[in-house]
Amino acid sequence: MLSIVLIGSGNVAVQLAKNLQKANHVKLLQRYSRSVKNTEYFDKTIPVTNNLKKLKEADLFIIAISDDAITSVSKELQVSKGLVVHTSGNKPLNSLICKANKGVFYPVQTFSKEKEISFDQIPICIETEHTDDMDLLKYFANSMSKKVYEINSQQREKLHIAAVFANNFTNHMFAIADDICRKNNVSFDILKPLIQETAKKVKFISPKDAQTGPAVRNNLKVIENQLRQLDHNEKEIYSLITKSIIESYNS
Amino acid sequence: MLSIVLIGSGNVAVQLAKNLQKANHVKLLQRYSRSVKNTEYFDKTIPVTNNLKKLKEADLFIIAISDDAITSVSKELQVSKGLVVHTSGNKPLNSLICKANKGVFYPVQTFSKEKEISFDQIPICIETEHTDDMDLLKYFANSMSKKVYEINSQQREKLHIAAVFANNFTNHMFAIADDICRKNNVSFDILKPLIQETAKKVKFISPKDAQTGPAVRNNLKVIENQLRQLDHNEKEIYSLITKSIIESYNS
Repeated sequence: MLSIVLIGSGNVAVQLAKNLQKANHVKLLQRYSRSVKNTEYFDKTIPVTNNLKKLKEADLFIIAISDDAITSVSKELQVSKGLVVHTSGNKPLNSLICKANKGVFYPVQTFSKEKEISFDQIPICIETEHTDDMDLLKYFANSMSKKVYEINSQQREKLHIAAVFANNFTNHMFAIADDICRKNNVSFDILKPLIQETAKKVKFISPKDAQTGPAVRNNLKVIENQLRQLDHNEKEIYSLITKSIIESYNS
Repeated sequence: MLSIVLIGSGNVAVQLAKNLQKANHVKLLQRYSRSVKNTEYFDKTIPVTNNLKKLKEADLFIIAISDDAITSVSKELQVSKGLVVHTSGNKPLNSLICKANKGVFYPVQTFSKEKEISFDQIPICIETEHTDDMDLLKYFANSMSKKVYEINSQQREKLHIAAVFANNFTNHMFAIADDICRKNNVSFDILKPLIQETAKKVKFISPKDAQTGPAVRNNLKVIENQLRQLDHNEKEIYSLITKSIIESYNS
């Protein structure tokens, strides 16, 4: 049985706590929260402290807090035994500064407090400073998810950039589409099944092979006609992405 | 019972034929195909002709062919009774040139020949030249799908631009993410659940409200760090979309 102390009370911590309580071979001993924020989202039976000096002994300390606080909180830890991991995609392993051994447990998903999400199908990227700790972290990650990947800090940094394209920028394309619909009194609902299908396709076909539309067909007549109808900001984006699609199919 | 003649043998025609055969109150009388292309994807029991002069009489003639052929094929039709519709999101109603009454039946989805798709949940955008024909087209569209929208040619043109953002450009964001993963020896599979979740979110939350990541937080340290790691083409796209996100949350 792996004993865990969970540090943090944001979206990731809320969802982690729920999944830790359900997992086999895992015992959530205690959680740390600086304030009473989000208390309502946590099971009341989990012992809680607001004092980093009063953490229990455990096999694993999971720091699930905002990127900018990772270093300062890890410095305050008075933990010398056990493995300390953070959950950030964006921060290297050595942003942890503490006596105990270090690692990373990065669940690649977007979390909210309200929507309960099972870790089962969430890819988990893990890294440890010492190879000796990898077995323990792998054992833990496998008890939470079926998809565990060993990835170093440099790869994780690139993965996080890729995630910005695949998640944030994609979502901004939806926002622009929503905007165009709104301005022309057309319901954005019309596009929702197409959006679902676009995401579904990429499970089975590489995005490059799945591409359709005027850019990949290099249909300049349609492209020019559509460009004419866009305002400045949208036009710049349309034009640059179209250029990039055309180039990537002709190089 | 509505009688239908289907003109075309591409992806949309293949899927339409399958769904027409299943629909209530609808009878697919005949299909027209210029060549024997894709014959294997059609039910053998549907009468087929390759002669536009030999079309049967019907209530509805559906022209499901490539955008550039719509005008020329419609000119060759020797049909004076019944309603003639095309299925294009990109072409106005008056790209049809024929004696019969005209309309548009635009299913907003991406189709392939291989993957059978039910029209049930596909939004259908309809338009007729004469208001008298709207009842018939609406009756037909409702027998195919639960989501029918009356939209004019101008709105449809804008909707099609919005679809380019929501589908093609989104897919290109996936392609760039895939590329970054590949170059750094990280599996693109890690991002697939995140991609599904991003698409799922937009069903319930407006994309503007769903946005996360460094741009919406205006986290310049992360943005600059990520920009430094991208090559020229990706950097330009990252920079422009980030600027657009920042502006849209600060205006």
